[in-house]
Amino acid sequence: MVLEKFPHLLHGGDYNPDQWLKYPDILEKDIELMKKAKINCVSLAIFAWATLEPEEGVYRLEWLKKIVDRLYQEGIYTVLATPSGAMPRWLTEKYPEVMMVSAERVRNLPGGRHNFCPTSPVMRQKIQALDALIAQELGNHPGVILWHISNELGGNGTHGECHCPLCQQAFREWLKAKYKTLDALNHAWWADFWSHTYTSWEQIESPAPHGEMGIHGLNLDWKRFCNEQMMDFTKEEIKTVKQYSNDLPATVNMMTFFKDLDYFKFAGLVDVISWDSYPNWHAEETELKAATETAFMHDLMRSLKKAPFLLMESTPSITNWKPVNTQKRPGMHKLASLQAVAHGSNSVQYFQIRKGRGSFEKFHGAVISHQNTENMRSFREVTELGACLEQISDRVYPTLNKADVAIVFDWENWWAVEDAKGPIVPLDYAGTVMMHYRPFWKMGVTTDIIDMDCDLSEYKIVVAPMTYMMKAGFAEQVRRFVEKGGVFVTTYWSGMVDETDLCFMGGFPGLITDVMGLEEEEIDAIGPHRKNTVSYGENSYSVGALRDVIHTTTAKTLAEYEADYYKGSPAVTVNAFGKGKAYYICSENEDAFFDAFYRDLVKEEAVAANWPDELPEGVTVSKRVGKESLLFIQNFNEAEISMDLAKEYRTVAGETVSGTLFLKPFDCVILIEK
Amino acid sequence: MVLEKFPHLLHGGDYNPDQWLKYPDILEKDIELMKKAKINCVSLAIFAWATLEPEEGVYRLEWLKKIVDRLYQEGIYTVLATPSGAMPRWLTEKYPEVMMVSAERVRNLPGGRHNFCPTSPVMRQKIQALDALIAQELGNHPGVILWHISNELGGNGTHGECHCPLCQQAFREWLKAKYKTLDALNHAWWADFWSHTYTSWEQIESPAPHGEMGIHGLNLDWKRFCNEQMMDFTKEEIKTVKQYSNDLPATVNMMTFFKDLDYFKFAGLVDVISWDSYPNWHAEETELKAATETAFMHDLMRSLKKAPFLLMESTPSITNWKPVNTQKRPGMHKLASLQAVAHGSNSVQYFQIRKGRGSFEKFHGAVISHQNTENMRSFREVTELGACLEQISDRVYPTLNKADVAIVFDWENWWAVEDAKGPIVPLDYAGTVMMHYRPFWKMGVTTDIIDMDCDLSEYKIVVAPMTYMMKAGFAEQVRRFVEKGGVFVTTYWSGMVDETDLCFMGGFPGLITDVMGLEEEEIDAIGPHRKNTVSYGENSYSVGALRDVIHTTTAKTLAEYEADYYKGSPAVTVNAFGKGKAYYICSENEDAFFDAFYRDLVKEEAVAANWPDELPEGVTVSKRVGKESLLFIQNFNEAEISMDLAKEYRTVAGETVSGTLFLKPFDCVILIEK
Amino acid sequence: MVLEKFPHLLHGGDYNPDQWLKYPDILEKDIELMKKAKINCVSLAIFAWATLEPEEGVYRLEWLKKIVDRLYQEGIYTVLATPSGAMPRWLTEKYPEVMMVSAERVRNLPGGRHNFCPTSPVMRQKIQALDALIAQELGNHPGVILWHISNELGGNGTHGECHCPLCQQAFREWLKAKYKTLDALNHAWWADFWSHTYTSWEQIESPAPHGEMGIHGLNLDWKRFCNEQMMDFTKEEIKTVKQYSNDLPATVNMMTFFKDLDYFKFAGLVDVISWDSYPNWHAEETELKAATETAFMHDLMRSLKKAPFLLMESTPSITNWKPVNTQKRPGMHKLASLQAVAHGSNSVQYFQIRKGRGSFEKFHGAVISHQNTENMRSFREVTELGACLEQISDRVYPTLNKADVAIVFDWENWWAVEDAKGPIVPLDYAGTVMMHYRPFWKMGVTTDIIDMDCDLSEYKIVVAPMTYMMKAGFAEQVRRFVEKGGVFVTTYWSGMVDETDLCFMGGFPGLITDVMGLEEEEIDAIGPHRKNTVSYGENSYSVGALRDVIHTTTAKTLAEYEADYYKGSPAVTVNAFGKGKAYYICSENEDAFFDAFYRDLVKEEAVAANWPDELPEGVTVSKRVGKESLLFIQNFNEAEISMDLAKEYRTVAGETVSGTLFLKPFDCVILIEK
Repeated sequence: MVLEKFPHLLHGGDYNPDQWLKYPDILEKDIELMKKAKINCVSLAIFAWATLEPEEGVYRLEWLKKIVDRLYQEGIYTVLATPSGAMPRWLTEKYPEVMMVSAERVRNLPGGRHNFCPTSPVMRQKIQALDALIAQELGNHPGVILWHISNELGGNGTHGECHCPLCQQAFREWLKAKYKTLDALNHAWWADFWSHTYTSWEQIESPAPHGEMGIHGLNLDWKRFCNEQMMDFTKEEIKTVKQYSNDLPATVNMMTFFKDLDYFKFAGLVDVISWDSYPNWHAEETELKAATETAFMHDLMRSLKKAPFLLMESTPSITNWKPVNTQKRPGMHKLASLQAVAHGSNSVQYFQIRKGRGSFEKFHGAVISHQNTENMRSFREVTELGACLEQISDRVYPTLNKADVAIVFDWENWWAVEDAKGPIVPLDYAGTVMMHYRPFWKMGVTTDIIDMDCDLSEYKIVVAPMTYMMKAGFAEQVRRFVEKGGVFVTTYWSGMVDETDLCFMGGFPGLITDVMGLEEEEIDAIGPHRKNTVSYGENSYSVGALRDVIHTTTAKTLAEYEADYYKGSPAVTVNAFGKGKAYYICSENEDAFFDAFYRDLVKEEAVAANWPDELPEGVTVSKRVGKESLLFIQNFNEAEISMDLAKEYRTVAGETVSGTLFLKPFDCVILIEK
Repeated sequence: MVLEKFPHLLHGGDYNPDQWLKYPDILEKDIELMKKAKINCVSLAIFAWATLEPEEGVYRLEWLKKIVDRLYQEGIYTVLATPSGAMPRWLTEKYPEVMMVSAERVRNLPGGRHNFCPTSPVMRQKIQALDALIAQELGNHPGVILWHISNELGGNGTHGECHCPLCQQAFREWLKAKYKTLDALNHAWWADFWSHTYTSWEQIESPAPHGEMGIHGLNLDWKRFCNEQMMDFTKEEIKTVKQYSNDLPATVNMMTFFKDLDYFKFAGLVDVISWDSYPNWHAEETELKAATETAFMHDLMRSLKKAPFLLMESTPSITNWKPVNTQKRPGMHKLASLQAVAHGSNSVQYFQIRKGRGSFEKFHGAVISHQNTENMRSFREVTELGACLEQISDRVYPTLNKADVAIVFDWENWWAVEDAKGPIVPLDYAGTVMMHYRPFWKMGVTTDIIDMDCDLSEYKIVVAPMTYMMKAGFAEQVRRFVEKGGVFVTTYWSGMVDETDLCFMGGFPGLITDVMGLEEEEIDAIGPHRKNTVSYGENSYSVGALRDVIHTTTAKTLAEYEADYYKGSPAVTVNAFGKGKAYYICSENEDAFFDAFYRDLVKEEAVAANWPDELPEGVTVSKRVGKESLLFIQNFNEAEISMDLAKEYRTVAGETVSGTLFLKPFDCVILIEK
Repeated sequence: MVLEKFPHLLHGGDYNPDQWLKYPDILEKDIELMKKAKINCVSLAIFAWATLEPEEGVYRLEWLKKIVDRLYQEGIYTVLATPSGAMPRWLTEKYPEVMMVSAERVRNLPGGRHNFCPTSPVMRQKIQALDALIAQELGNHPGVILWHISNELGGNGTHGECHCPLCQQAFREWLKAKYKTLDALNHAWWADFWSHTYTSWEQIESPAPHGEMGIHGLNLDWKRFCNEQMMDFTKEEIKTVKQYSNDLPATVNMMTFFKDLDYFKFAGLVDVISWDSYPNWHAEETELKAATETAFMHDLMRSLKKAPFLLMESTPSITNWKPVNTQKRPGMHKLASLQAVAHGSNSVQYFQIRKGRGSFEKFHGAVISHQNTENMRSFREVTELGACLEQISDRVYPTLNKADVAIVFDWENWWAVEDAKGPIVPLDYAGTVMMHYRPFWKMGVTTDIIDMDCDLSEYKIVVAPMTYMMKAGFAEQVRRFVEKGGVFVTTYWSGMVDETDLCFMGGFPGLITDVMGLEEEEIDAIGPHRKNTVSYGENSYSVGALRDVIHTTTAKTLAEYEADYYKGSPAVTVNAFGKGKAYYICSENEDAFFDAFYRDLVKEEAVAANWPDELPEGVTVSKRVGKESLLFIQNFNEAEISMDLAKEYRTVAGETVSGTLFLKPFDCVILIEK
């Protein structure tokens, strides 16, 4: 990922001068303060539709061009948005069909954002006309470096789902193209159940709380359709702007653990991956949860295209929309920003440059606050970070993280496993995946995050937790991977259904019975009053609610249940298959189990960690690899940490470091491996 | 209750071959496995409308006849359903008026089940046409032993309530027939309150969250109307099928603590009582709650017609629709199944024979699982139970439980007491009744469950907890019962209102003032921060939120409050009246109080328990009485229990037992009294 | 506040004979029992529309006149209602537009109360026609002493908000009148944010969950509009009845902490303030919360017109609509009733005289219960209170409470601060104000409750907690107040926005920077896992979630944070300004801090308490001042209390008291200062 016009680490953020056109002194002050803060880029026009097209067909782009010009003169580059994130009032007034309809079949009233109907021809036509104009006027401007298509697609509680008549009809067409016959559809959805057999395409309705919710195949196809419809909308916006700006790359800004859109599919649409990160720092006794979830998301973003990505939004200080909006403690701004770079980001960007005066986000942290001064802690910390990014930019730019371990996190499985009824409701797929991710973070082992359609061949270890839905081809890919020497780890509640949520008949897919060397008997789910443990190594580890009861065929038992009617039966197994090995973990165990299990596994498979020694608690090390390799040592403790250095390193400033490394509370130190 | 064509204990369950018509080998495998599991009956066609009538007026019954024939050849009998439980798509598409309308006045979209409008003439006409055809074709088939009318009427969150215009009009007609004049209705509903006086019948609307909710008489009449409308729908289905199959009895499958339909009234419609039981086994530290609630429901079902009933549905292993779906521990399947028989069931039937491949219930336990094999724990336990049922069938069939004690559990009181405002919201009528039921279960004393319209004369003790609504005639019946020597127990919050929820004026009904020998002063309701106790016997027992403050006239005080401003005032009283006695319990006390109180009462009234000695905790004994009497000793402990035998018994196998009886964890032993 | 026709303490309550017209003996019994209970007034016709106008244009007032006559003969005066609180069925049937529409744009169905559309011309015309007739017939009756306009306006969950098309149009007109141009409106609402710029007045819609909720200026203006629309409706009712009864004063009955209507504005409409009080006595370990909240509300009611007010409703025993409806313990009825008088009430009135037989409120406490007898504890306690009120009436009537301290409690700030996003959601403005009120109650210091539009000049101390919105003029008023020697106390999250929720730019209003002598840096919000304390005096006090980080310019630091990154920075400051002082409290501290802080402040400013010594816990003293001053010593402990008397007092009975005063549990003693 290289932005050709400006191949440097970006430092900047969303900038909304359209809210301030009546305040020319504010616009001037902005330039002054941005330069002080070492801002080198801004994102423009994200919500500017009403200012760019104040009446239907009446366009006003002069102000935008003027600002892009001026910024460019001052050395500030522009990420330019297509303003589809929010609709102007004249549009919703004249064409109500552009407004989403909820699952309850109620059409929105005007207001909010991210809530357009992605099917509506009028919506597409109106935004594309404006997009084309913006692209013609600014797409080739030397200061414009990237297209920012729309904003946080599907966000703000819309789930990216519109249930309007146009979407219903498009859904039916989509289904016809997929299934060809109603017979095929009825079988795939197992619709004869409860007499729900469809006898005409017109009978199909999207899932509704006061209608059909019990056909999981319908629910799944609806999620797929909504995802594709949003992709199609985005594709058309990208195509429109690229007509006039051939070489300008495009991105969409993604969100954290956003279930509604399949980002692996969206990755194919865009040139650059970017995302918006708002971790809950300081919300718990330790930063472990926030740090690992954010690290996971960064790794996912990097993995989507196996390339550096952009941290498109983050707050320089606080958010305003959480129940509790906590200030980042001193150091945390630098640490959180460099954490992104450590995992593969080539930018630190903010929401936003200047705080609005009114409405919903006026108390969201920004580089420039209502006090309009540089004399604030957050401004100082932003400025310091800007200096740091300038210092490291040239070294960081040619590097990227490399992984021997991959963790499977698959959107369609996410949709399916949390929608199905049983054995526990609700199931938490993302939380389950995080249980398996955290041990690698603690060891400083780089992981890629992949889905079931990704290539496994480059990895030593592939971990696929709760792979309830076994997508076509995945079982076969796993078999080949293990045969050739790969190590595969999976768990309870895997391999249950195919891609339309139909159960596999006559035993689970070949994968499990021969690759895994075991057969499932039944799955138990039980509350916390029934404690159980598994033995593993020298220790006992407590077990959660889900407990698979299996018997081995060729597998070897590594751990057993220690209580209940399955006492003594296998809890963790390993099976030698071809040149590789396949592990099965039967139950939801406590974190300490996963720490021990993966420590043993990494050791046995000789996977290299980014740090030669065991890391202190709360500290991880990321590694970006190039001609020279950069180690990012991140201290998520609110305490000073010292680490003995096994060898000599250099700092970014060119100094040599050896002996003991001291990290301040919430500090990140960058070392260069010689 | 004798099913003439097959007078044996039934072992079987719901079977949905209509989902598998494209899988002939599966249908064959089903027969093979059912016979192995000693299944002797199945329930067919419950959700088969779409398969039986794939297009309007196009009927396809051949597959069903073929399956009934084949099953009969294999010795498997059929319980045949009318398939009104779920509507086909062509019906909802062409006649939207068949779909329920919610209290919010929103019509359902197609989908779900149990959600038809019971008033709709089209719905009735279409289902009856199909019912007639099914009855003509199969009503006299030698293998068909029972009509299963519709399914779980009013279930799946519908509350059996449709608020569509047709239902509104029918409700108004129903009210006209009941009240004759608006004057009478306005008085009965106390509608002058808040100016809600009705001046035309057309002004009447069913209760609505955005309309009228404060007229409790309206709310009550609405529940009565909905109940009667559903009865009328059911009556017509029964009439339709019986036209062609005069001798075939009919049932509806009832549900656990199902508030919306008055099963005492439904009992009059059907020939056989049946119900679906899904207890929360293993959900708590002990099985006490699950065991007693299930026992209560079984007793209720038996009491509805004072006859054996059928356990129409239960799971052979797990459910899938609860938040946590726990496997039955080894032994529990047999224990839970024989618990039903112990209380009067003549069957153990399952949902379902074969697990579906897709949609909502694919993970619900079934006799045959996706693995399609007999080599599973649940299949083995089902098979063992089948053998047991075969062994005991002839002995059990001519017996029935007999009770000296009755507990009043009245649907209209349930509706009224939980709808009224004050003194505590919410009140839990069923939970309150259970407090009074549990002591009898612990003592092994058989109880009938009756409502206020039932005859009291055959009982020694009648317990009527929280009889807030005093139905016309009940007070008089109680008076006669006590006069003639009966023992009557009632509690706080009794005798407040008449059948339209109008308060009795000038003191409570004669019942309380003279039969009970006391007058109420006020009722206190207070939170758990204000602890109080009542003295009873040698002990103090803690008191819950509701505390009646009374003074006695002729009654004797058995217990007093020990704190607060009513310290020293009566908490439990007894009044001699005629040849009998009337007890009044002023407060919601802890379980230990009720255990002590009813132990004393049973002793004093010389009520015979089913077991001569005190029972170990978690163990109860039920008794089915005939020429010989069968004792079912049920161990709900997950531990072995030993009990000393006071005399000699025989086993079902004909062996003599004496000395000490050993029960395994979750075991049920059947002994025959000589 | 003097009701000229009956200048005595009122003792009475709501009376609904319209529910009992068919029961003449009940109506007679009512008179008998009211006289026994020393009732001297009743409120009539509150929900009698359907009885007064049973058909459109057909009026029946004879029954009402007869009852007013009869009561007057018996010495019972009438507070006469306009019956707009609930609509008759014929009205909602013929004119559906009178029924409110919810924010979801769903029109109510008939039923409920307080839910008319205040804009509807038909509603206004119909009620005014009836009001005029009532006023003509009874407005000059010698027994009628006060107009009771409608009932609990905006109550019963309606929030006083109707979103119907008529209200939308009226809202737009209101906005046009306020802003003149869309440009001005767009700026005030900061509507360019998210492209929400309005380009025609018709685009404006009231806030909706499925539309616009993020424009806080819109939300605020909508609350203001709804408030004014309800005022306008009320004004027209008052004008209508006064046309025919010139001298009869009018009131509306207000509610406890009722956020939706700005009672400071309503105070200008009416002649007499009255309110309905239903405290949660006995709901917690101590009565502190209930007692102080009720005291606050009484003080607010008195402050609204700086005059005595009426306690229009209270329960003689229990409510029925709370989750737990607890009986008042012996003594509490007298204590709670005299608490009202102590704070300035000239009445104790009840809901209601007689319990209804049916519908929603039949279990609400009343003077006369279903038993229809005087032989009940609550009747006796009511009677005793009646005697007490008779005894003290002449002494109490000419007195009123006087305050040196005022607490700011501003409705528009309430709307704004709880609507804004950040730093914590939800914020509790009323709860925050109570933290500052309680210390004064504990010291027996009289406080007035004022809003930002009130005059500050008469007070020594003004406390303005969380004054997020700084209304135009308030900052200037505070500056003058302090300059002239006043003491002003404010807190974190003050002075953030102007009246349209736009942030002040370039630092906070002059008030804070020079009067307060400090500058804000940032506000931290954090959960309870991050404990912190502030040092103050000799002690440390724990800190809540909100923590302002400031630095002083001219202010002196009185307390510091003791932990976190702002350890050692100011937590409480004081600034000398002109002749006065300004205090700033940076964080939400525990109660003990406020107790200590205000104890010091009251001492330093020599504010006189109503009792010379420190008061026992749970005891407060109120003082009504006139030619002679009355002290109300209120013991909210359920225990006897003794207090040493510093001097001699007289009792109302004329006796001299000295030495030690004994108060029974829940007692109130009245002493006269010599």
